[in-house]
Amino acid sequence: MIRHTVAFRLKHAPGSATERDFLQAACELAKIQGVQKFECLRQTSAKNPFTFGLSMEFADADAYAFYSDHPDHTAFVQQRWIPEVTEFIELDYVPHAP
Amino acid sequence: MIRHTVAFRLKHAPGSATERDFLQAACELAKIQGVQKFECLRQTSAKNPFTFGLSMEFADADAYAFYSDHPDHTAFVQQRWIPEVTEFIELDYVPHAP
Repeated sequence: MIRHTVAFRLKHAPGSATERDFLQAACELAKIQGVQKFECLRQTSAKNPFTFGLSMEFADADAYAFYSDHPDHTAFVQQRWIPEVTEFIELDYVPHAP
Repeated sequence: MIRHTVAFRLKHAPGSATERDFLQAACELAKIQGVQKFECLRQTSAKNPFTFGLSMEFADADAYAFYSDHPDHTAFVQQRWIPEVTEFIELDYVPHAP
């Protein structure tokens, strides 16, 4: 299992229609084959600058690569993410038993 | 539901006994009352400097506060986290339906 997460901040005003439209478009990524446990999240800690998050899981690296390279994902990045996101951090996790 | 996550980097050598000891001590935090779905994770993206992660969930803000203020947590922060963690970011999430 690979959990792909991203925390981000939008240029849109909080609570605005443009903010909601971006998040609804992001939720469409859940439809790409191999995406599991897709979550749209609000980031609530004051210890970082981000206000939203996305989290999804993939069975393995191949499923993650299929998503990353999928035209619906690359189009979203070009048409929505780059123009509308001001800052972000990607964090990917796999289980670890110390 | 509040998901409390932290991504971090240790001063210990990768794969070392000191690294493992820190992570095993961190896993003890799962025993604090109110902690749900505790996960020890390895951070695998090259797009950030962090190498491990912890994730846990709380039913509500009161349960989160109980954990934060719990002497086992505050002792871990003072005795292990501050001396052994070189950099970290905390991210807290709640579900959001746009």
